[in-house]
Amino acid sequence: MLTGRHHGAPLNNFKKMDLAKNGMFHVKHSRILFLRGLPISCRAIYLIDFSIFFSFPKTTHLLPGFTFMRSCAIVFPRRTRVISACMRRCRKIVMDRDQIALDHGSGGEASAELVETILLPFLDNPALRELDDSAVVSLCGAKVAMTTDSYVVDPIFFPGGDIGSLAVHGTVNDLCMQGARPLYLTLGLILEEGLPLKDLHRVMEGVARASREGGVIVVAGDTKVVPKGHADKIFINTAGIGLIPDGISVGAGNARPGDVILLSGTVADHGITILTTREGLRLQSSLKSDSAPLNDLVADVLKICPDVHVLRDPTRGGVATALNEIARRSGVAIRLSEDRIPIARPVRSACEMLGLDPLYVANEGKCLIILPKEQESAVLEVMRRHPYGSSATLIGEVEAQPRGTVLLKTAVGGTRILSTLTGAQLPRIC
Amino acid sequence: MLTGRHHGAPLNNFKKMDLAKNGMFHVKHSRILFLRGLPISCRAIYLIDFSIFFSFPKTTHLLPGFTFMRSCAIVFPRRTRVISACMRRCRKIVMDRDQIALDHGSGGEASAELVETILLPFLDNPALRELDDSAVVSLCGAKVAMTTDSYVVDPIFFPGGDIGSLAVHGTVNDLCMQGARPLYLTLGLILEEGLPLKDLHRVMEGVARASREGGVIVVAGDTKVVPKGHADKIFINTAGIGLIPDGISVGAGNARPGDVILLSGTVADHGITILTTREGLRLQSSLKSDSAPLNDLVADVLKICPDVHVLRDPTRGGVATALNEIARRSGVAIRLSEDRIPIARPVRSACEMLGLDPLYVANEGKCLIILPKEQESAVLEVMRRHPYGSSATLIGEVEAQPRGTVLLKTAVGGTRILSTLTGAQLPRIC
Repeated sequence: MLTGRHHGAPLNNFKKMDLAKNGMFHVKHSRILFLRGLPISCRAIYLIDFSIFFSFPKTTHLLPGFTFMRSCAIVFPRRTRVISACMRRCRKIVMDRDQIALDHGSGGEASAELVETILLPFLDNPALRELDDSAVVSLCGAKVAMTTDSYVVDPIFFPGGDIGSLAVHGTVNDLCMQGARPLYLTLGLILEEGLPLKDLHRVMEGVARASREGGVIVVAGDTKVVPKGHADKIFINTAGIGLIPDGISVGAGNARPGDVILLSGTVADHGITILTTREGLRLQSSLKSDSAPLNDLVADVLKICPDVHVLRDPTRGGVATALNEIARRSGVAIRLSEDRIPIARPVRSACEMLGLDPLYVANEGKCLIILPKEQESAVLEVMRRHPYGSSATLIGEVEAQPRGTVLLKTAVGGTRILSTLTGAQLPRIC
Repeated sequence: MLTGRHHGAPLNNFKKMDLAKNGMFHVKHSRILFLRGLPISCRAIYLIDFSIFFSFPKTTHLLPGFTFMRSCAIVFPRRTRVISACMRRCRKIVMDRDQIALDHGSGGEASAELVETILLPFLDNPALRELDDSAVVSLCGAKVAMTTDSYVVDPIFFPGGDIGSLAVHGTVNDLCMQGARPLYLTLGLILEEGLPLKDLHRVMEGVARASREGGVIVVAGDTKVVPKGHADKIFINTAGIGLIPDGISVGAGNARPGDVILLSGTVADHGITILTTREGLRLQSSLKSDSAPLNDLVADVLKICPDVHVLRDPTRGGVATALNEIARRSGVAIRLSEDRIPIARPVRSACEMLGLDPLYVANEGKCLIILPKEQESAVLEVMRRHPYGSSATLIGEVEAQPRGTVLLKTAVGGTRILSTLTGAQLPRIC
């Protein structure tokens, strides 16, 4: 049985038969379609951002990786006029859905919608409303950053890290992105009955190692066990607090026209590593997650340039989604140059093979730094001296218009709009 | 197929055949036996503390609730000399197991072992080592309490609350139990694909309501979605921080001989409500969880008696386990009177029917307060004026010897040792 669950324009816009017959179908106006009932595991359904098919306005292709990945993704034509009409319709349809879908956890558009329509209305308060990587609260007159993240990455061990080190790095980095010095972490474990103790051991080694490097101590913990089949091996929540030094004020709303945008290194390493490890694809032996704590790097940068405007780690949704949020929150335009964005060769090959846009793939040890142009060279120099910033580079500039937009000057000379991630490009990457 | 997984003394100490034949078997030296392969869901296996069968030193019975609950529990004879020999052997065997089992999340002996042998060695630091309900850290010269808890309760809605309100109450209470005024919470959601949005709505209403009553604001959040079948509906992590006023110093190690032990109300309401709701048992329509925030009650108590020695909320593992930890940490004996411990009538009936010892069943809106005897009546008066302390009462005293022991004077006049919870009495109750 093949059924379609629809996340876009009306269902009658696509022809099911084509798909069932030959694995390819044509579609007009629609954006993303989930496929169910294929003889593949649910996890193996990947949704690919359609924007990479910009140059094929009339047809839709199943990805070249279809058979190889034992999964499928449908990409849709991008036609600016149609899209903008669709966007509105999509939004409405997304909100009509009555169940949680994978893309609600993607860090992209559906996630934002879930937060804004269901979560925020119940919890609204000034600290939460900022929707920054960490909240900033006042405690005894000090500015304290506070954040939380749950980690459900699959697989729990991958080249370059594990769910334990990832959980610490992620929360350390979220604190850093507020300009804070990370101090204390809490650790909540949800374990599936039957998890081998040696796996838990290895995860805890990761937690300990990452905590040491991240300069934090885990001061409180909690362990829950659920019966077999009610969770997947291990889920970890880390929450953390850090102290924001006087004079530091960074935030996604602080980018100003004239600022420059620096990126601390290559993109997409983490997401591609997780994907290929999970699927058992042996594309490149050198693929490795970039998961790393950025506390030292950020401290070095803030020391020579306390005037940094924005710090952001482009995790779920990738660089494109992070920059879109900054553009929207700051009311500015961001202009990137595609050929300046560093991508490791094996990652680029994997992205091409799998049809993924590296700008939407998650990173776990990178940061975007937006600051006044005159500080550019000094900050780049400091970053490049740090192991986690050795390939730091200028990737773009902030401009005044068109507000709330991220524009990418492509390698072939055109310019396209980079939108926020739609759908769940890669589920369970963190 | 009926197989036994063994958590006690050597396997050859029990006779499998008896069980297979007539649902009853005899055992020597063993403590707890998990049964697998019965035609019941895994979740429905409950392990009952054996101590209630003190008066049957030679035989072991399947509980009367066996058929009714479609689950079983084996209780073992308690013979003091044998037990103490067993305890050592049990400990060793538990550590030889190579997988996570449900009782690792019970809050009892196996949980403590997991923490002490696997988690603590990797993370050891003074704040964590205390193993109190919250850690106490120093921040800008202030004493800050910090804690985390994950909630995996099943069902997510139950009489008297839901997983959202429970998650807030639990963390608020853990902060209060350190004498702190709870301030800020983080909220990490792990959602299963397919969760109805209306359920999420209802959970968030619970979070909002509980936060208002608990005097905290949720300043940071995170949402992850996992594919259907990789989690069970919704898991919630809450972490929180609170400020400990000057002059307050409570901790599980502070009980002193001569102190009195107050309990804020009836026991076992939460655990019994969850169990009966999950199993669809209509024992008593008036069963209701006691889940509640204790911030006001504790603040009232600390106002008139800043000299409180210990505050503890008897959650997983119940009153017996919480008091055992206090006795052990403080190096004192605790003597309780069974007839002073308040138990609501429907809870008592349910416990009798299901063969559960209410002293080991979880509470989510109760606290144990240990303080100098001379403050007893003033504090009881204040507690009884508060809705969450209206049936507060004195339940026992702290003595010097035998150190590390909790003794219960039974209603019929005997005295028995109350040990720490062994095994997972009720899984997923919080």
